[in-house]
Amino acid sequence: MKLNVGIVGYGNLGRAVEKKIRAGHDFNLVAIFSKRDLPGVINYDDVENYKGKIDLLFLCGGSQNELEKQGLRLIKNFNIIDSYDNHARLKTYITKLDRLSKQNGKVALCSFGWDPGLFSFMRALFDGLGFKPYTFWGKGLSQGHTQAIKNIPGVKDAIQFTVPSIKDIEKIKNGEKVKEGKNLHHRECYVVTAKEDRDQVKKRIISMPDYFEGYKTTVHFVGQNKLDSLKTFAHKGQVISASNTINFSLNLKSNPDFTAGVITSFARAAANLIKNEKHGAYTIFDLPISSILKRDKFEYL
Amino acid sequence: MKLNVGIVGYGNLGRAVEKKIRAGHDFNLVAIFSKRDLPGVINYDDVENYKGKIDLLFLCGGSQNELEKQGLRLIKNFNIIDSYDNHARLKTYITKLDRLSKQNGKVALCSFGWDPGLFSFMRALFDGLGFKPYTFWGKGLSQGHTQAIKNIPGVKDAIQFTVPSIKDIEKIKNGEKVKEGKNLHHRECYVVTAKEDRDQVKKRIISMPDYFEGYKTTVHFVGQNKLDSLKTFAHKGQVISASNTINFSLNLKSNPDFTAGVITSFARAAANLIKNEKHGAYTIFDLPISSILKRDKFEYL
Repeated sequence: MKLNVGIVGYGNLGRAVEKKIRAGHDFNLVAIFSKRDLPGVINYDDVENYKGKIDLLFLCGGSQNELEKQGLRLIKNFNIIDSYDNHARLKTYITKLDRLSKQNGKVALCSFGWDPGLFSFMRALFDGLGFKPYTFWGKGLSQGHTQAIKNIPGVKDAIQFTVPSIKDIEKIKNGEKVKEGKNLHHRECYVVTAKEDRDQVKKRIISMPDYFEGYKTTVHFVGQNKLDSLKTFAHKGQVISASNTINFSLNLKSNPDFTAGVITSFARAAANLIKNEKHGAYTIFDLPISSILKRDKFEYL
Repeated sequence: MKLNVGIVGYGNLGRAVEKKIRAGHDFNLVAIFSKRDLPGVINYDDVENYKGKIDLLFLCGGSQNELEKQGLRLIKNFNIIDSYDNHARLKTYITKLDRLSKQNGKVALCSFGWDPGLFSFMRALFDGLGFKPYTFWGKGLSQGHTQAIKNIPGVKDAIQFTVPSIKDIEKIKNGEKVKEGKNLHHRECYVVTAKEDRDQVKKRIISMPDYFEGYKTTVHFVGQNKLDSLKTFAHKGQVISASNTINFSLNLKSNPDFTAGVITSFARAAANLIKNEKHGAYTIFDLPISSILKRDKFEYL
């Protein structure tokens, strides 16, 4: 069954998902929806008109303000998949989605990106095997944190680099103890804003719950040219265990392209869930890897 | 449901599995079976007397000569889990086990080790995400290849080191092409045997199908003291992709301890499969990771 799909949100991730769908053979792209007025793109407010014409919606909006609201609205009429990444709110969101998807006879695939997503899986695997997992991100540009800064009134443009504590990574790999928590990373922000807004913008950033509060956060105010010169889609991350016994790492040239690859790959699992009416919300923990394979599983064994 | 379990085979892996079971709370160890006459261990020929008293048997015999025969016999009366690792025969074995386990109302969990097992999963995941996986083992002592040499008549003792081509690993990580196949590793064998047996033993080693044939293989004949000084349980391995985009690696102080950790962790999935009469053969591709978790999955997300 080739699913008819739509994309909601047409930023970096939405465009990367579109590219993956068009390059592959798993999905038939019916429509792209956005709140912005863009050529060839349907207004988000009209999405319900596509009920019955779209089997699965890829939700590619921002996790901070959009995704939750959109997911809880769209699940009433559509199967959905997202890469929702607000760790602090995940359980609440997914629990609600699970209830709504069962009530409405729908399937929701949640948080299929690299973290949450692949890294969540690795943390669960490591711990299941008896190895405490430690997660490090970066150095790299975080799309979610960047968007969170851009959402602050007065901010014209911004980027946020997540920087891991190399010293602590080395300690863990050497089998030494480290203090755990938000101290294992710091957050470097570059922000374009009017001079008179700097103080309040900085305050808003460093006190933002879930995103910056409690982290060592540096805020640099720069001009647009300087900011543009720093922009990158590259990112990195790793899940490691004491003494480096077990280690999973990513080195990404393009964070949105890789996330789009994860979301479109796991979306292949949706076809069978929909067909067999296995309604409910699923995360990466709930799907056997056989559900996304392109070839006979024995070729990998 | 706490499963009543038994162990079949009491070598390095069997002993490591016993240690894990006794240290954990998931299983009640009923009996250990071996072909050898050992104190406190039941003779393998009497295993069927335990029908109905054991929910799950951990098969810890050698993959070359024992496991297949034992699996196909025991599945008629027991649920089983193994870490069978003869890549060349896996599909045939598991296909037979699947048929027999369904006929006999049993569950078989196959090839739960690190390779096959965790590495198989990673190859499937990488490829599912669109990244061709490359697997490298070592440098480390391979239990299976060591046992295969020891099984040759005239061999008093032996060990086999699997050695990866560091040059090819670097090439792949740099995004360069490599020639694929058995050339990516070589096999270093240390063998204790009588002088007059050396020629035939060497011939038997280098021509052994599945294990050595086609590999660059070096055979060193040494005395027992030298051999003992080289013995180690350490092993390593990695599944990598071009340009190092996605990378999974293991650095093991004790190969049998780690394999025992994998097999006993995934054995936790057996309880529900047995209870819900989901008969058949399962590999690591077929189980969602949620089936082996000790804690709420949201703690890992």
